[in-house]
Amino acid sequence: MTRVVCLTPNPAIDVTYRVPTLTPGGAHRVADVLERPGGKGVNVARVLHALGVPCVIVAPLGGPAGTWLADALTDAGLAVRAVPVAAPTRRTFTVVDEGGTATAFNEPGRPLTGAEWAAVVDAVNEELAGAEALVVSGSLPAGAPEDLLPRLIAAGVPAVVDTSGPALLAAAGAGPVLLKPNADELSAALPGLSHTDAARRLLALGAERVVVSLGADGLLGLAGGEAWRVAAIPGVTGNPTGAGDATVAALVRGLIDGTSWPDVLADAAALGAAAVLEAAAGDVDLAAYTRFLPTLHAERLE
Amino acid sequence: MTRVVCLTPNPAIDVTYRVPTLTPGGAHRVADVLERPGGKGVNVARVLHALGVPCVIVAPLGGPAGTWLADALTDAGLAVRAVPVAAPTRRTFTVVDEGGTATAFNEPGRPLTGAEWAAVVDAVNEELAGAEALVVSGSLPAGAPEDLLPRLIAAGVPAVVDTSGPALLAAAGAGPVLLKPNADELSAALPGLSHTDAARRLLALGAERVVVSLGADGLLGLAGGEAWRVAAIPGVTGNPTGAGDATVAALVRGLIDGTSWPDVLADAAALGAAAVLEAAAGDVDLAAYTRFLPTLHAERLE
Repeated sequence: MTRVVCLTPNPAIDVTYRVPTLTPGGAHRVADVLERPGGKGVNVARVLHALGVPCVIVAPLGGPAGTWLADALTDAGLAVRAVPVAAPTRRTFTVVDEGGTATAFNEPGRPLTGAEWAAVVDAVNEELAGAEALVVSGSLPAGAPEDLLPRLIAAGVPAVVDTSGPALLAAAGAGPVLLKPNADELSAALPGLSHTDAARRLLALGAERVVVSLGADGLLGLAGGEAWRVAAIPGVTGNPTGAGDATVAALVRGLIDGTSWPDVLADAAALGAAAVLEAAAGDVDLAAYTRFLPTLHAERLE
Repeated sequence: MTRVVCLTPNPAIDVTYRVPTLTPGGAHRVADVLERPGGKGVNVARVLHALGVPCVIVAPLGGPAGTWLADALTDAGLAVRAVPVAAPTRRTFTVVDEGGTATAFNEPGRPLTGAEWAAVVDAVNEELAGAEALVVSGSLPAGAPEDLLPRLIAAGVPAVVDTSGPALLAAAGAGPVLLKPNADELSAALPGLSHTDAARRLLALGAERVVVSLGADGLLGLAGGEAWRVAAIPGVTGNPTGAGDATVAALVRGLIDGTSWPDVLADAAALGAAAVLEAAAGDVDLAAYTRFLPTLHAERLE
């Protein structure tokens, strides 16, 4: 039985090329090509799947790239509800050199038609029957309906949203159980405020809880009148892409399991750190997670 | 009726991204994505098609990328004989900045099985029935049979070959009607010789004619005991990718039409220059070609 529905409004095939060095203006022979299903909602679902939480990915998919992506997710053991759309699914290209420097090229998501967005909403609502939570992660393609997230959140199943820009503010007003911006996204949406004040503004707009991921400064979690903080694990370095998605996976699991708020935050920080150790977004080092968890505790700020 | 069969042993989808500037280590939002069928044999066929010479592309194609490539060629009005293979067709990925600097990342062609190579040879031989020439253009994927080009050339239809490395020397021994290396390819295959001496070596190995494209220094053409030279059009700048393929298209057209050798060479130089003016490999500026042609004449060196 599906417990969590993971909507990925802007899925991608993440292509990674390894080259010895990146020389602008040069011609590079690529020794190693890695293609992997991507998009933040896909990464959240991968982590939930690794944690044993039954979930389904809902995503608009188009063209040969969309077919490839659906097949690759199914092959990885993930449940997928593909919503067929005309526009081909986008790619991201990342070039990694021998020193580990990553240079990313992100195609924009191609616009969907109004009827295609309506089909996405219908698919989410069908999959939500009997589910305990909805996760919406990632950007929206240009031209997405402004009321898309409010409508999905208002449908009644507790919604956890990790997005940015105007969509973040629009989501807050519809009463999600949790918003999870990172520090940059929060500052961009609500400039000129401290992280705590900006998070309070999201609560005032209607969010029940707000968690702000602060990278090396850990996590900040607000709920009701309380603010909590979890420090980061010292010395954890690696690939930060996907850490936020692992954090979201831990948060949604904690919420549907009824775990206490401080324990949910500590768990989310530990799983985020365990994701940093993995080269690919959507993977977590479960052994490291088990080591990290007892060392982390949420501290009440106010 | 097909006059020319264009074998592309290593086809690709050429993906071009436009970005304002390329910053190593940065994350780039890609405003403009262009996907186009690529591979040198494909480019030759595009130019022959633009010249009104009926031709067919033979290429091993695999995966969703292979399907896309066959469909895109068909949509462009080109005849394609796709040989289905298991390995997905590769991509090349070029990032062009606002200053026009192109940074290229080329995936290697994935290996085919022996049975797949046999199917490629069978397809070429079937398409050659009634045709006047075979063109083989581009690199061979790793693991291609060493006797692939010799067997195709020895089949009897006049063969024009544009390749590099050991395959260039192997082709020479089988008696092709024409080899068309560029200066770098010729020097790499036969190091330490002048272009003329290296070209003579290819004649000695068995090639009937050799044309060396020298970029801004024009073309060098050897046949029998004669050596001819055509200067480049002064001041033509732009995209040199695809100029060699336009040159090959002009050479093969001239040979099957029975045009005199000096006129074939002048025509090839004019069409190559007209390709430099176009942003995409496989396109030629036919108006420029018409202007250039009367200004070019082959000069006999010996």
